[in-house]
Amino acid sequence: MSAIQKNVESASDRYAATFTQGHLALPPAKKYLVLTCMDARIDPASAFGIELGDAHVIRNAGASAVDALRSIVISQQLLGTREIVLVKHTGCGMLTFENRDAVALVGESLGPGAAEELRQRKLDFLPFPELEKAVQADVEFLKGTRLVPDEVPVSGWVYEVESGRTRRVV
Amino acid sequence: MSAIQKNVESASDRYAATFTQGHLALPPAKKYLVLTCMDARIDPASAFGIELGDAHVIRNAGASAVDALRSIVISQQLLGTREIVLVKHTGCGMLTFENRDAVALVGESLGPGAAEELRQRKLDFLPFPELEKAVQADVEFLKGTRLVPDEVPVSGWVYEVESGRTRRVV
Repeated sequence: MSAIQKNVESASDRYAATFTQGHLALPPAKKYLVLTCMDARIDPASAFGIELGDAHVIRNAGASAVDALRSIVISQQLLGTREIVLVKHTGCGMLTFENRDAVALVGESLGPGAAEELRQRKLDFLPFPELEKAVQADVEFLKGTRLVPDEVPVSGWVYEVESGRTRRVV
Repeated sequence: MSAIQKNVESASDRYAATFTQGHLALPPAKKYLVLTCMDARIDPASAFGIELGDAHVIRNAGASAVDALRSIVISQQLLGTREIVLVKHTGCGMLTFENRDAVALVGESLGPGAAEELRQRKLDFLPFPELEKAVQADVEFLKGTRLVPDEVPVSGWVYEVESGRTRRVV
């Protein structure tokens, strides 16, 4: 067992020993979803004020709304959420490369078989060059897609990894 | 401003007031990634023992490895993570429906335009009928894809929403 796996087990022992929230229902109590980045420096529960059971939390590289669409539709249509809070962040890795760079890196690092699988799966890494424009573009995408009802409020925010502050963009 | 948006602002004020982690680097300090579900009842940081800055946390409906592949490749190839911890959970919404049910529901609820967009985007909701088999299948997918190096340890776990415990499956 790796050190990381041992850490999961010991954390689980500690967490379960004082756990009192086994009664929470499947649908989020406050009927909203938060979409943010996978970045290690973000703790959505504390930074965005999410109590256990309140909201779905979707996280991917860059907080991409296109990439999250499957989860968003399930959250809304099957589990009743009615509002979307989208949070990208300063210092995001997605600001640091272009898609072609990542594709080239995969080929160099993992070999031609991996590069071929990337092509077959039509994977786009979805980087973005400007943070606030990317927040605006993703909010516009969510307002534009027919898969999100028009009446769903969608707000776009930036979390500052330097200060711990989350500010509204759109 | 909605009550949910006000809650983000007040939580941010509280969080930023005592924030001391502005020095953390972009690459995860412990070089691993956790893939888990968007479910509102999961707090990955506490339940799985993730300190701020330690690990990428990817979350989507059902903790789907296929759906997370873009983020996983970025995490590993661009940001240096070298281990994957995959955690699905008891009581998951993905156990409660089949893809055709969700597709039908989208058409009924959002109209034919939404159903057409679903087809154009080739969205599969990726539900699964059995929890532990789904954990095994996703671990096998990650071990099988050429986009994840063979030497990356991949472990599969189940988080019990009733007890707060996380147990290893594979």
